[in-house]
Amino acid sequence: MDVLEAIHTRRSIRKYENRPVPPDAVRQLLAAAMTAPSARNGQPWQFVVIDDRALLDACADICPNAAMIRGAPMAIAVCGDLDREGSEGYWPIDCSAAVENMLLAARGIGLGACWCGVYPRPHRIEGLRKLFGVPERVVPHSLVVLGYPAEAFARQDRYREERVHCNRW
Amino acid sequence: MDVLEAIHTRRSIRKYENRPVPPDAVRQLLAAAMTAPSARNGQPWQFVVIDDRALLDACADICPNAAMIRGAPMAIAVCGDLDREGSEGYWPIDCSAAVENMLLAARGIGLGACWCGVYPRPHRIEGLRKLFGVPERVVPHSLVVLGYPAEAFARQDRYREERVHCNRW
Repeated sequence: MDVLEAIHTRRSIRKYENRPVPPDAVRQLLAAAMTAPSARNGQPWQFVVIDDRALLDACADICPNAAMIRGAPMAIAVCGDLDREGSEGYWPIDCSAAVENMLLAARGIGLGACWCGVYPRPHRIEGLRKLFGVPERVVPHSLVVLGYPAEAFARQDRYREERVHCNRW
Repeated sequence: MDVLEAIHTRRSIRKYENRPVPPDAVRQLLAAAMTAPSARNGQPWQFVVIDDRALLDACADICPNAAMIRGAPMAIAVCGDLDREGSEGYWPIDCSAAVENMLLAARGIGLGACWCGVYPRPHRIEGLRKLFGVPERVVPHSLVVLGYPAEAFARQDRYREERVHCNRW
């Protein structure tokens, strides 16, 4: 799929078919995420791949914005690794780029995904940390809920001329 | 260009041909950025398109990580609009997704780009704010330096198995 087509037809998908995502597709998503740019190329990320039903359901209890995970076959928690930051304070930005790559890769290989924010909400961070056993120097940043889509991707063009300024405001 | 190809061959391009980027290409970059996901679809972003030589050079004085801008025909400053946040605290994450979309769109249409971090460095934020006349409730987040590439895109696969954890750490 063309990259511009992927960008403009990516949507938050919250309904999924009742079938698992194969391991090679999961690897493609992770490889796309890990190829994201990061400050001084620090690549300060870690990933928890979740396909355990009890753990998936527990995520919804911790993150109210991730209710759709109850009907999903899997999710990937993207986490920032504070000991791997290339430039101090940039890990949340770097992890965001990794998530966006993952969402676009998912679109490209026919998967649906929904980005559920974790950081900077302390309750969600600590809840997921405890759930997955994430070490102290690693911070859960986002939960990407994934599966084969059971709803349509619709094209979007959110271009708004009034948000664009030329040289000066 | 295929989305996975764009993701894996995107690189920080710091050398550019001496020719301008046409307006329709700039619009494609902005449309891609504005189609990014954002918390509660707040779309909390604003953009400053810079092609004034003196302003471009001044950016390099403010942002030491943007030295390559002296040889670039243009840049786009991506800014967060605090009055448009869909969910408090998420604007830096939302703007990061917009930047990543812009970088991948640039790759897709044959442009080279380099993401230069601004936020959370106070000196860079306030320097660019003054330079462009950005209002108080808008925060310069990133500077994306752009032009036709005068160096090669090389494929990368940064996949690292040791960063992947299954269900529990």
